[in-house]
Amino acid sequence: MFSCVGFAAEDPTKPLLPYSFNRRDPGPEDVAIEILYCGVCHSDLHTVRSEWPGTLYPCIPGHEIVGRVIAVGDQVRRFKAGDLAAVGCLVDSCRTCPSCREGLEQYCETGFVATYNGPDKVLGGHTFGGYSSHIVVTQDFVLRVPDNLDPAAAAPLLCAGITTYSPLKRWGAGPGKRVGVVGLGGLGHMAVKLAHAMGAEVTLFTTSPSKIADGHRLGADAGVLSTDPAAMKAQASRFDLIIDTVAAPHDINAYLGLLKRDATLVQVGAPDKPLPVNVFSLIMSRRNFAGSLIGGIRETQEMLDFCGAHNITADIEIIPIQQIEEAYVRMVKSAVKYRFVIDMGSLKGAAAGRP
Amino acid sequence: MFSCVGFAAEDPTKPLLPYSFNRRDPGPEDVAIEILYCGVCHSDLHTVRSEWPGTLYPCIPGHEIVGRVIAVGDQVRRFKAGDLAAVGCLVDSCRTCPSCREGLEQYCETGFVATYNGPDKVLGGHTFGGYSSHIVVTQDFVLRVPDNLDPAAAAPLLCAGITTYSPLKRWGAGPGKRVGVVGLGGLGHMAVKLAHAMGAEVTLFTTSPSKIADGHRLGADAGVLSTDPAAMKAQASRFDLIIDTVAAPHDINAYLGLLKRDATLVQVGAPDKPLPVNVFSLIMSRRNFAGSLIGGIRETQEMLDFCGAHNITADIEIIPIQQIEEAYVRMVKSAVKYRFVIDMGSLKGAAAGRP
Repeated sequence: MFSCVGFAAEDPTKPLLPYSFNRRDPGPEDVAIEILYCGVCHSDLHTVRSEWPGTLYPCIPGHEIVGRVIAVGDQVRRFKAGDLAAVGCLVDSCRTCPSCREGLEQYCETGFVATYNGPDKVLGGHTFGGYSSHIVVTQDFVLRVPDNLDPAAAAPLLCAGITTYSPLKRWGAGPGKRVGVVGLGGLGHMAVKLAHAMGAEVTLFTTSPSKIADGHRLGADAGVLSTDPAAMKAQASRFDLIIDTVAAPHDINAYLGLLKRDATLVQVGAPDKPLPVNVFSLIMSRRNFAGSLIGGIRETQEMLDFCGAHNITADIEIIPIQQIEEAYVRMVKSAVKYRFVIDMGSLKGAAAGRP
Repeated sequence: MFSCVGFAAEDPTKPLLPYSFNRRDPGPEDVAIEILYCGVCHSDLHTVRSEWPGTLYPCIPGHEIVGRVIAVGDQVRRFKAGDLAAVGCLVDSCRTCPSCREGLEQYCETGFVATYNGPDKVLGGHTFGGYSSHIVVTQDFVLRVPDNLDPAAAAPLLCAGITTYSPLKRWGAGPGKRVGVVGLGGLGHMAVKLAHAMGAEVTLFTTSPSKIADGHRLGADAGVLSTDPAAMKAQASRFDLIIDTVAAPHDINAYLGLLKRDATLVQVGAPDKPLPVNVFSLIMSRRNFAGSLIGGIRETQEMLDFCGAHNITADIEIIPIQQIEEAYVRMVKSAVKYRFVIDMGSLKGAAAGRP
């Protein structure tokens, strides 16, 4: 084992503070990474504050990780010290269930090992995430980052990017398809960029007049204020696919009615209360309401390569780890365009460990 | 025009009573049918009582029609006088929109012409349904009934049959697939029979212990009491497809959780209030919640032919038209196994017209 430093919450009421802990020494299949950047995802806050059930403390969140490989096990061929590498929401899975065998480790039937707050199979206890100096991950769950991408702005691709890329691909976003994106936050701004790069005609739906222009800048062909009933009515039955990124309670029926026959609305934001669904809207045009969870490792690599080919990264604001609590306050207010990324170099003021 | 007799409601508060009216003389493309049997669908009651918006009075319901051809127009080749013929929920559509061109007239983008309470394009006013002595329908919306089927028991195939057949086919019910059917009423008992005939493994979900045995008799491989939490838990993530026929408010999340990854629950019963959907259940296994509306004409004929090949009809109780109000009371209580069918011969006590 080697000592690391990170920022951890000791309980749901405490701020994140410097925390020293151990990572395992890299085994034969492991890649040890010095973390350069870690994106700040809303899940991080839900977890540290126990807004979702089951948080284990101390909690070190973070699952949008880009770093530099510092050591590899003797069975590792795809990475070597000095490579840029990335880790997303998953650090392992059973690898044997039908989902894992299909490359859909995010739906592992015995539960994937989450990058933080998951069961640590090697050291016991629970996993610690990317708000830390280093991470050690089995090679099959480590991603390559295209060299042309800014490593800080690439970090949010590991969750916000794949969470929107996966349903766009699965439900056929591309040339000749009209794709709606609901909400322009961390997920929404990636959905706009990715759907545009896939060749779809993209319409942004937002409650914020100020975000319409931003939507256009990011690649949307049109922007609709969802608070304008006439504008919404004009969009009825027009869409092949809608990606709904809104995690707050909202009227899903206003969007289901915008789908063509046989089209699908995919919820990727996760409201914690049930959404009332008008069943007539589904029945009368054979519409579908679906959900989608991040993506598998193979598809995450495909997404990173796609982003490399199209020069796509997130729009970010870089912060030192010491500003994480202020960042959370602003994230809750949607006062960030569009993702905070922690510069992990800022940890070095604390007592950083070395392997 | 020729005079007919039917049973009509004059307003939402009145019982159905004998009513004389005119049908058009058959045009070149028309088929005139003497109605032998008409199934009693819950939609009939919703419409005559104005439980759904937009009922036009006088209202003659009925869209599960089997009868004998008595005359055809000179352009009609597929039917001749004396043939058994059937009419379902649709008597016309625009025939030019993408849905119509795909044979999905039920999703006609300008609205199909419903067999009752639709706009009568020829005579003006609104259409009158199958609780009547005769009907005149353009040939493209008239179906053939296989000779081996009992014509009375075949009548409910025209709505209950196609409403369940269509989603079973679309979502791939067949050998090796596990299909759940929620509710054992008019729709549910057809879903069980059809899914079984398609080769699927069928599980019935019901709140009525007495219906479990009936489910087995109809073709279900298993029956689960949905009020038994342990029994429901044992079914988690097992189903490739669930057809939910329940039109009353119910906990849809109890069934969404029974779907495998990427599987679909199709709502064909139409609760009039929104159903709260737990979005996590959709997201965590990429599940789908969809709706489906009856079926197109081509698929309705396919369904009738399938039923002919497999000797499938509805389980029915035949009533004279004079007992329709008592039948409605029992239908609302689910006290019918499983569909009332009106013997239209009973109309002849009234002043029946002749073409």
